[in-house]
Amino acid sequence: MSKIVLIGSGNVATHIGTALHSAGHTILQVFSKTPTSAKLLADKVQSTFTTEIKMLDSNADVYIIAIKDDAINELVQEMPNVSGIVVHTSGTQPMQVLETCCKRTGVFYPLQTFKKEVKINLKTVPFCIEGSDNDVINELRKLASSISDVVETINSEDRAMLHLAAVFACNFTNHLLAVSKDICDSSKLPFSLLNPLINQTIENALTHDPVKVQTGPAVRRDENIMKVHLEKLKNSEDYYNLYKLISSSIINLNKNNERKL
Amino acid sequence: MSKIVLIGSGNVATHIGTALHSAGHTILQVFSKTPTSAKLLADKVQSTFTTEIKMLDSNADVYIIAIKDDAINELVQEMPNVSGIVVHTSGTQPMQVLETCCKRTGVFYPLQTFKKEVKINLKTVPFCIEGSDNDVINELRKLASSISDVVETINSEDRAMLHLAAVFACNFTNHLLAVSKDICDSSKLPFSLLNPLINQTIENALTHDPVKVQTGPAVRRDENIMKVHLEKLKNSEDYYNLYKLISSSIINLNKNNERKL
Repeated sequence: MSKIVLIGSGNVATHIGTALHSAGHTILQVFSKTPTSAKLLADKVQSTFTTEIKMLDSNADVYIIAIKDDAINELVQEMPNVSGIVVHTSGTQPMQVLETCCKRTGVFYPLQTFKKEVKINLKTVPFCIEGSDNDVINELRKLASSISDVVETINSEDRAMLHLAAVFACNFTNHLLAVSKDICDSSKLPFSLLNPLINQTIENALTHDPVKVQTGPAVRRDENIMKVHLEKLKNSEDYYNLYKLISSSIINLNKNNERKL
Repeated sequence: MSKIVLIGSGNVATHIGTALHSAGHTILQVFSKTPTSAKLLADKVQSTFTTEIKMLDSNADVYIIAIKDDAINELVQEMPNVSGIVVHTSGTQPMQVLETCCKRTGVFYPLQTFKKEVKINLKTVPFCIEGSDNDVINELRKLASSISDVVETINSEDRAMLHLAAVFACNFTNHLLAVSKDICDSSKLPFSLLNPLINQTIENALTHDPVKVQTGPAVRRDENIMKVHLEKLKNSEDYYNLYKLISSSIINLNKNNERKL
């Protein structure tokens, strides 16, 4: 079992911290600049907390930095040198940003979207691990395996590609659902009517190759329907352009029958 | 219980026909120009079949046309006049395309994506009903209710908007998953790593307003990450343009905090 310091008290720190605590690890300390938030998480994981980075406990095996990407660099500059492993939980930041504060660095990236109020079963969440040497990798894999069944060693470059893939599959997908809901709202149609169709679409795409299960007017080259649809979208430049561009991208991907990247 | 003629023997005809047969209705006849396909479905639903439109059984209560959108018009011209209700199952064709062949027309549109080999529980699939008069609407609602728990009366205009919303939520969403898989493939990363993230994203979007649960670099206005991502996509014009346009659409939808249509 490891001694852990959590740096950050947001969604990711909360989910990972409580899971590690439940798995039997000792959370020594929570650091956050916001005292109420630090105390809240510290209470959950039965640890102390501090709002002063200089007061960071020096006895931890692992320091988990779970703060916004653009705040990591500044934090690392202010952090006292520690002998434990220091990891961040970011999808895009390279491991190297941690080098100024310590020798043993790593990445502990959970491939999931977190909201404090939504319970997540971490057991099925893939943890992407990177480490400055094999010992670090092994320690981090062991730590991740104590809370998840899916642990992968992935370097910074591949992790960045995975994050880019996640932006398309999740952030962008969510936006299309927002557009779809907006179209329903404009005709006072309940968006929930689409639920079975959306769930079936995702199931088909995840159990088959999504290129092969593509349906709809674009892949059928049904120009009449596409014209009718574009006419309905002419008052929204964004939606009109999205419809045109995604349709042509569907046609191109299927025409070439070859991948584009 | 109704007497039904199925016109078409593809995915939709097969799913609806077998469900109606199981619910106790009598399938009098299957019509399809392809004899093997017609026989296959006829055997499943214990009916006769024909490949000659002139031989259509005249004793049915309901004729269900489940063929490609652009073939409906031609078929209707060739169809003998019948006294039963004639419906199509299309998301976009207006009910009026059926008027040349009969007086009692309607729409029987299942809001789902069908593949013959994938079992679908029709009970949860919304059926969108339209009818040329109240009697027709009532008969079609009764028929739909015998195979589904979700039956809605929706006019042609609203049905077309629902279909447009479905294109964004399903066809376009599937394409983004195809792009995401392509990005994973290009780095030899297993696309399946994203499964828990994708499933959670869809669950969040369907249980909350997708605008409110939007995450990712665009909504955070994280220009640094977006630049890094665009750089990685510079060899694929389609993906580069998709990333730029969807990101700016996310920013616009959240900036205005108002719907765009």
